[in-house]
Amino acid sequence: MNDQYYMQLAIDIAKSTKGQTTPNPAVGAVIVKNNQVVGIGAHVKAGDSHAEVHAIQMAKGRTKDATMYVTLEPCSHFGKTPPCSKLLIESGIKRVVIATKDPNPKVAGEGIETMKAAGINVEVGLLEKEATQLNQVFFHFIRTGLPFVTLKSATSLDGKTATKTGRSKWITSQEAREDVHYFRHIHDAILVGVNTIIKDNPSLTTRLNGGGKNPVRIILDTHLRTPIDAKVMEQQDEETWIVTSMHVDEKRKVTYQNKGVQIINMQTPTIEIKPMLKLLAEKGICSIFVEGGAEVHGSFLKERAFQQMITYIAPKLIGGKTAPTSFGGEGIKEIEDAMNVDITDVKMIGKDIRITATPM
Amino acid sequence: MNDQYYMQLAIDIAKSTKGQTTPNPAVGAVIVKNNQVVGIGAHVKAGDSHAEVHAIQMAKGRTKDATMYVTLEPCSHFGKTPPCSKLLIESGIKRVVIATKDPNPKVAGEGIETMKAAGINVEVGLLEKEATQLNQVFFHFIRTGLPFVTLKSATSLDGKTATKTGRSKWITSQEAREDVHYFRHIHDAILVGVNTIIKDNPSLTTRLNGGGKNPVRIILDTHLRTPIDAKVMEQQDEETWIVTSMHVDEKRKVTYQNKGVQIINMQTPTIEIKPMLKLLAEKGICSIFVEGGAEVHGSFLKERAFQQMITYIAPKLIGGKTAPTSFGGEGIKEIEDAMNVDITDVKMIGKDIRITATPM
Repeated sequence: MNDQYYMQLAIDIAKSTKGQTTPNPAVGAVIVKNNQVVGIGAHVKAGDSHAEVHAIQMAKGRTKDATMYVTLEPCSHFGKTPPCSKLLIESGIKRVVIATKDPNPKVAGEGIETMKAAGINVEVGLLEKEATQLNQVFFHFIRTGLPFVTLKSATSLDGKTATKTGRSKWITSQEAREDVHYFRHIHDAILVGVNTIIKDNPSLTTRLNGGGKNPVRIILDTHLRTPIDAKVMEQQDEETWIVTSMHVDEKRKVTYQNKGVQIINMQTPTIEIKPMLKLLAEKGICSIFVEGGAEVHGSFLKERAFQQMITYIAPKLIGGKTAPTSFGGEGIKEIEDAMNVDITDVKMIGKDIRITATPM
Repeated sequence: MNDQYYMQLAIDIAKSTKGQTTPNPAVGAVIVKNNQVVGIGAHVKAGDSHAEVHAIQMAKGRTKDATMYVTLEPCSHFGKTPPCSKLLIESGIKRVVIATKDPNPKVAGEGIETMKAAGINVEVGLLEKEATQLNQVFFHFIRTGLPFVTLKSATSLDGKTATKTGRSKWITSQEAREDVHYFRHIHDAILVGVNTIIKDNPSLTTRLNGGGKNPVRIILDTHLRTPIDAKVMEQQDEETWIVTSMHVDEKRKVTYQNKGVQIINMQTPTIEIKPMLKLLAEKGICSIFVEGGAEVHGSFLKERAFQQMITYIAPKLIGGKTAPTSFGGEGIKEIEDAMNVDITDVKMIGKDIRITATPM
């Protein structure tokens, strides 16, 4: 057992809570004394105790001279809970190993300085990359004030999202579709264009074995064309928000509102991506899973307004010059203007290939 | 050292000659006596000695009571060379381990029977899958009488082969393009549509570090529109064949022929894929690397007339509703009519992903 082992454990604990802590990060903490784990903790929900607090509580009186492994710098300020760095000092822990600093430039390092001043041996940076990856949504949100956007597409091996007649059920396998539900689970919101609602009438809920968290369903609908009997109009645990333009019929708005739908009126004749993202962030949306269609994807691409792309490629050939693809819109003229991305992961999901990429 | 080790060596030897033995298979042989390698051999070129002969020659008098590992059943008939099974018997080898039987149903097992009748201990099937894969082209050709067809495509992550204005240089990386040259090297012919010649004016030669074998360049050109000053008209080591329809101007044909181009007149008003493949097989083409464009790929897909597909996916997003994709043609209406393939390999080539798939 070594530092790396315990930090990996803390990261694995944090990972298990991914998606449920928004707008807070997923954090794991492990306390070790004489090479024995005496306390472990995670932050499970905004408003609840931080990971460090749970770990110290579990360790009870066995924290003196112990080491804490924690995936994120302990906080130094009073928020919904008292500062963790203060609690750590009181607990008698003598060494703290931290994977990543607080991403908020205004407070980064404060928790570390407080602990150091109290004589604790603090080390920063162990498994930093993995811990940063784990909270990429949170880090992005804190740094930019905008939601972390993931674009999802599912195509045949020849890049088609449907046949020329628009049939798309199903291109990918059951396993890939279940994988999509996991991504819905870990995002705050799912976003589609109104054409997807009209064409496919999806429910846009999370259907995972063992349940899952439903994201807010966001529909981009410039002219309020969402059918009033669409599945997304059925509100139970799930919320539906319709983003629309400045010019819409007030009466029609009320029809949706009576169904419990929130209408978000942009102050422009069309929906502009970046102002919309800002507005959604203000409403507490830290992460968005964009499921298309092609025109919506084309808009996000044009604005370079995404942080991750998940592409499922099914072992099928559809063919056809007019069959649709995952990214529409006007498009570019020169290859030099294409958006470069980094392939960060390639994995088989059942018989399909899943490619994860991030903008360079 | 065990049987598997020596057979793997024989396969590795055979692999190194892939593409240079057509219309014969690539074959490797290893002779082992007292756990020492005493002879190795490969078949390097049609008309030259078989692998077994080279191995026995190298072993000189040390073949008595030895074991031979050979990737393909030794032949039993007089062809351009005397039968290997006879030579094996004369050499005193007492055990022969074979990966795959002769794929020709008319002679399969004859070599084995001859050797068994002479008292040799013969075992068949070690690393059979790998040895079959190695000679998939040869096996397909022998069984069907048609060339083995590989379709190649190169697209952005969103499935586009060019921008909406037709720009495609370069979507994939230098490494992926070099990989393509290896595939040209191991195929007997490279095939493109005339539109690719008109639009891109490629030379369609093999440009590998350390040289390589140039495939025959085949152009599908129904109306003889290939520009007379196209790079493929320059004939040195490389040959160019133009496949055309029944109705073409005789004078124009002569213009090409004077440049050394072979004209293949199909007896139909358009070029039909399957009769063309049959004709090319009769002309000694055992394998074809089809490099597009979209209409050509669409035709091969429609006829289900290919055995392998190689897809390079570059970490770029091009977007655009009208940007072209790898498979054109008329296309299908229902997802059920899509062609199912097996993904057999996914590999990073530089920054690109290479997907290998075979029809199910």
